[in-house]
Amino acid sequence: MKILVTGAAGFLGCRLIHSLLAGGPGVRRVSTVIAADTSRSPIEDPRVDCRVGTIVDGNFVDSLLDADVHVVYHLAAVLSGQSEAEFDTGMRVNVEGTRGLLEACRARGTAPRFVFSSTVAVFGGDLPPVVPETLALRPQTSYGVGKAIAELLVGEYSRRGFIDGVACRLATVTVRPGKPNSALSSFVSGVIREPLAGIDAVCPVPLDTPIWVSSPRTVTANLLHAGTMDTAKLGDNRSLNLPGISVSAGELLASLERVAGPEVRARVRVERDDRVARAMCGWPAALDATRALSLGFTADASVDGIVQEYIKDSTKGLRS
Amino acid sequence: MKILVTGAAGFLGCRLIHSLLAGGPGVRRVSTVIAADTSRSPIEDPRVDCRVGTIVDGNFVDSLLDADVHVVYHLAAVLSGQSEAEFDTGMRVNVEGTRGLLEACRARGTAPRFVFSSTVAVFGGDLPPVVPETLALRPQTSYGVGKAIAELLVGEYSRRGFIDGVACRLATVTVRPGKPNSALSSFVSGVIREPLAGIDAVCPVPLDTPIWVSSPRTVTANLLHAGTMDTAKLGDNRSLNLPGISVSAGELLASLERVAGPEVRARVRVERDDRVARAMCGWPAALDATRALSLGFTADASVDGIVQEYIKDSTKGLRS
Repeated sequence: MKILVTGAAGFLGCRLIHSLLAGGPGVRRVSTVIAADTSRSPIEDPRVDCRVGTIVDGNFVDSLLDADVHVVYHLAAVLSGQSEAEFDTGMRVNVEGTRGLLEACRARGTAPRFVFSSTVAVFGGDLPPVVPETLALRPQTSYGVGKAIAELLVGEYSRRGFIDGVACRLATVTVRPGKPNSALSSFVSGVIREPLAGIDAVCPVPLDTPIWVSSPRTVTANLLHAGTMDTAKLGDNRSLNLPGISVSAGELLASLERVAGPEVRARVRVERDDRVARAMCGWPAALDATRALSLGFTADASVDGIVQEYIKDSTKGLRS
Repeated sequence: MKILVTGAAGFLGCRLIHSLLAGGPGVRRVSTVIAADTSRSPIEDPRVDCRVGTIVDGNFVDSLLDADVHVVYHLAAVLSGQSEAEFDTGMRVNVEGTRGLLEACRARGTAPRFVFSSTVAVFGGDLPPVVPETLALRPQTSYGVGKAIAELLVGEYSRRGFIDGVACRLATVTVRPGKPNSALSSFVSGVIREPLAGIDAVCPVPLDTPIWVSSPRTVTANLLHAGTMDTAKLGDNRSLNLPGISVSAGELLASLERVAGPEVRARVRVERDDRVARAMCGWPAALDATRALSLGFTADASVDGIVQEYIKDSTKGLRS
């Protein structure tokens, strides 16, 4: 089986490709992963076929869809901070780039599985404590708007039989290794990662701000599942609230203290950043993921488990 | 005040322009209406400035936005039947055309009022008897998808301050004069209009199919209101369920019989057309228009009134 991953050089892309190549129960044997991104995938494996280019270049996108690509993972995106700062870039990559990739799939005529990484940020406005899939999408960030439009496209291209789509609304992934990224939620990893590395960190939101989080391991497992699940069970709704854990920023730091000690926790100070706080306070505290759970998607057991997983992975060299 | 109307040569466009020029309470004095469409507006008035071209032509669209345009009515669209038959045409006009027009507004930097004609067809899937604005948009036609994407764009361009947008989810407009159009709901006018003209007509849906309807007069009045209302009251939700009346196809024909007699009603026979019935049965039976009503939008009083209005207008030469 040949699989295309966009955003392949990013953190999630790398985790996903590692897992695809590793195989295991429920994962079909992979012959080739086409790893598309603006830079080369760091993964050294003869089955990885690196393609360097941008998703907004129609010729590049068209060249990615080898006739025998069975599954497309579309992870490439301009994240929330950059989308808010650069409106045109966000629209071009997150909307037009996605549309171009969908068109390339349609042109093949093979209706590949198309797993799209959507986000909790598609929701906004007046939100209940737990957000059901039946709630109207009223995104209040450009990132959320781009992803919401892309979800509508994934649904429509699926209804038309051009693709076999699954849009996964991912929780904020924590703990991401490496450097901060351009997501407004980047600090959710930073406040764990930096103190563990002996670096002071800032929490830019009030400690009672609720955040919907998921570990890299769980998110990766859920993306794999989206690539193999029986999509007939999705009916006419291709967008799924994926499971997560709802924690406040304070609970996240309390977990860091339990797992790594008070001196590590003490490296984090709260210093409000309006730009980040406004966006984060507008995102859901929790999603109702009942349908995803009934379809075989999984959740993390605890926030302590998430922090412990990061510490374990980082000592095994899985930090980037 | 200068006003731009796209889809100006269409039925609603003409009604709207007539009303804008006629003025009246709550309508600001209009100096010029730029009437944009693929054919010339039939309205002869020195204040009407006809511009002939297509909304998918970027140069044409850009040329429409005179610097002093205060209000844009964006009615141009590929209707539901054609959008379903010609996917690419629908996406190009309804999505990319709208985006182009929004960009032209943004380029002016004057944040004009932007009234967008959306539709009940943005809703789909499993629907409650009365559809609230909080329900997720799950359109099951290409037309509905295009309009749903355009609504997200209108919301986002408003949030950014590029326009001052109002997306009006119009009911099925009946009775439209003239010839059938490419909307799947075209018969909702045809089953009244044709029998009144002595022509046999077909009702392609079962008689118990509920339809959400509004008269041309009410829709036009509501579009005018959307052009002048205080948009601060819309908060972060620029999409409005507009008022309508929920009638079954059978009730519509019963009204025709009450108003015009049994021999006129007898000219309509039921002959199911799957393509039409599938789409119509997937559209809402009724919308919850509480918010629009509280904001000053209006509803028709009765279906008999709608039929009577058509008969009266058609004898006054307002049929096209």
